[in-house]
Amino acid sequence: MAGIITLLSDFGLRDWYVASMKGIILGIFPGARLVDISHQMDPLDIRSAAFVLFSCYSCFPPGTIHLAVVDPGVGTERRAIAVRTSSGVFVGPDNGIFSIVLQKEPVLEARSIENADFQRKPISATFHGRDIFAPAAANLAAGLSLERLGPSCTPAISEWASPLITGEGIEGEVIHIDRFGNAITNVAGDALGGQVALARWRVRAGEAHGLPIIDTYGVAPPGSAVALIGSSGFFEIAISRGNAASKLGLNTGSRVFFQRPGAQ
Amino acid sequence: MAGIITLLSDFGLRDWYVASMKGIILGIFPGARLVDISHQMDPLDIRSAAFVLFSCYSCFPPGTIHLAVVDPGVGTERRAIAVRTSSGVFVGPDNGIFSIVLQKEPVLEARSIENADFQRKPISATFHGRDIFAPAAANLAAGLSLERLGPSCTPAISEWASPLITGEGIEGEVIHIDRFGNAITNVAGDALGGQVALARWRVRAGEAHGLPIIDTYGVAPPGSAVALIGSSGFFEIAISRGNAASKLGLNTGSRVFFQRPGAQ
Amino acid sequence: MAGIITLLSDFGLRDWYVASMKGIILGIFPGARLVDISHQMDPLDIRSAAFVLFSCYSCFPPGTIHLAVVDPGVGTERRAIAVRTSSGVFVGPDNGIFSIVLQKEPVLEARSIENADFQRKPISATFHGRDIFAPAAANLAAGLSLERLGPSCTPAISEWASPLITGEGIEGEVIHIDRFGNAITNVAGDALGGQVALARWRVRAGEAHGLPIIDTYGVAPPGSAVALIGSSGFFEIAISRGNAASKLGLNTGSRVFFQRPGAQ
Repeated sequence: MAGIITLLSDFGLRDWYVASMKGIILGIFPGARLVDISHQMDPLDIRSAAFVLFSCYSCFPPGTIHLAVVDPGVGTERRAIAVRTSSGVFVGPDNGIFSIVLQKEPVLEARSIENADFQRKPISATFHGRDIFAPAAANLAAGLSLERLGPSCTPAISEWASPLITGEGIEGEVIHIDRFGNAITNVAGDALGGQVALARWRVRAGEAHGLPIIDTYGVAPPGSAVALIGSSGFFEIAISRGNAASKLGLNTGSRVFFQRPGAQ
Repeated sequence: MAGIITLLSDFGLRDWYVASMKGIILGIFPGARLVDISHQMDPLDIRSAAFVLFSCYSCFPPGTIHLAVVDPGVGTERRAIAVRTSSGVFVGPDNGIFSIVLQKEPVLEARSIENADFQRKPISATFHGRDIFAPAAANLAAGLSLERLGPSCTPAISEWASPLITGEGIEGEVIHIDRFGNAITNVAGDALGGQVALARWRVRAGEAHGLPIIDTYGVAPPGSAVALIGSSGFFEIAISRGNAASKLGLNTGSRVFFQRPGAQ
Repeated sequence: MAGIITLLSDFGLRDWYVASMKGIILGIFPGARLVDISHQMDPLDIRSAAFVLFSCYSCFPPGTIHLAVVDPGVGTERRAIAVRTSSGVFVGPDNGIFSIVLQKEPVLEARSIENADFQRKPISATFHGRDIFAPAAANLAAGLSLERLGPSCTPAISEWASPLITGEGIEGEVIHIDRFGNAITNVAGDALGGQVALARWRVRAGEAHGLPIIDTYGVAPPGSAVALIGSSGFFEIAISRGNAASKLGLNTGSRVFFQRPGAQ
């Protein structure tokens, strides 16, 4: 165990929420090495958080604890989970926030966090980041075995994590808008077949139809919308030197359709 | 001593001010564990900083050093102080920034920071965070006894930290606007008596009169302004699914009046 | 070696780029102490990054590794460099980002980072921060000698780092806009001679002509544009209680002319 705990949330940097979680962690495990991924996820945007976590988790050493709290269901019956993979342990609400990671990383062990010995008391109705997830992450980083947290469970994999494949093509959706306005989809780069075939697919995204798939940003005419495989390994909709999301009216959850060559 | 130093300021995250403080701290005490609370306090808004610090200090282990620098009086005669309580040591300008914490935490020892041995030279007129407060915090975290910093003193408690209680009711003010636009007041949740009585009080805040006091967000009709006891333990003015501060014209310092049942 | 690595970039805090770099660093050197300087540099604004780094590097202990990635030339032939001075080691693209520091700090050793043993594989075309600079910084912090990284080289010093001195005066430019809108120039405080002479120089910046040079903010009439030596040691253009950059139309790169006494 490296003692590293990453933090990802929609708490923002202006208020005290992130600091509260860190204080709790350091009180339980003073040796924790805390690394912020981001706290500026759009409020309640689980897809985007899932994608951001996916984009960087593999840069961290095995054994890293990834604490992710974008949690619209706080206070409801949604489970709190801890999931061990060979790349790290993921702690957060069981709302699909780990969907994209878990499509790639086999689950070695998953537990529903229920043992009150490892929770802050009293548990508030609105701040499980501080009262449930931070204590679980800190205890795990300090060496607690996962099974102590609660019973075995199966983590939720959200429907939006996978595109729908049909005879006409692949129906995906936007899962993240990056800072340049590129709209990253849930369609993996290898889902459409090889490079030769790619040139014959067409893409529909928001108000734009017939977008070509190109190899690299370099070959896109400035101002025109295109699709390409981004650095994350997923297809993204981009406008060279422009903001695709705002120009095409794309948001997280917007449908993106990849039309198979020859289909109408 | 856990060696933890938290940092709270209005320096923002774009410039180099926070990094300068951290460099100075690590130069004095390489073992320091630095945790940002926030650096996005509104410039010079002491009330808000006092509230944010209050909201998270108790999550940190005893012995934590809390360094808070929102300092409109930098360069004037206001004192620099270090205050020890059983929950931690607070270092910053003596301008009331610790008022809310110190209403709850008895002062065990307070010192005016004057000993030049523990200050950076020369001291700039504008950046005491780097030249006075950071060195004091780092030395304390490294084990320096508080008395070495300077003579004993009594920390300022600001007038705005407490509401005014009259026969008509309680006259408080807004001390923080959170990211959802809820306006948190300086009126403690137990200041108005028990839950039954609460339903008969009425609240005036900005442009809104006759606000009811409710139990939880769940029972507020969407769009209507209400008062309730927030997670911090203070009354706050909120609009269910709306931004109370912008809708009612509330800012830090805005007056909020709680009208006693039966008073006109 | 103190094991401190600072990070400065234009990656922002919303996406995963900074976390990726930190994960890579901690994987190589678990003992690294990571300190963010800022990740909110304007995209591709090398001048501003150079100035921000200059403003705080000397607060850190000797041996600190400063990792700075504002890198418009990523993917082109620009070199990656590591530069050792008596104040610390600087790692980043060889695009002038260290120009201001290196005008003050003699270069003890500079290396072109080329040794693939200390790079992540494969190297992406767009994210050398993660694939080249972070591994280099981590290895250096862990004790690697600079010479192992690659051949000796001479770091680029950008033209914009120094003003042009003529018979008429000194022609400089804005290298940073701070959060208050003060426009900091590349003209050092001692470039114009002593304090007495200063009062007779006049300054032209953006739409404003004939600005006086004053001693301190205190003596500036509210609302009027002035020039003064800022806390960084460089002349800056300011408006007392106003935003000089927006009022005078100044940006990074804007020309500022200091007219010699007696010149027309």
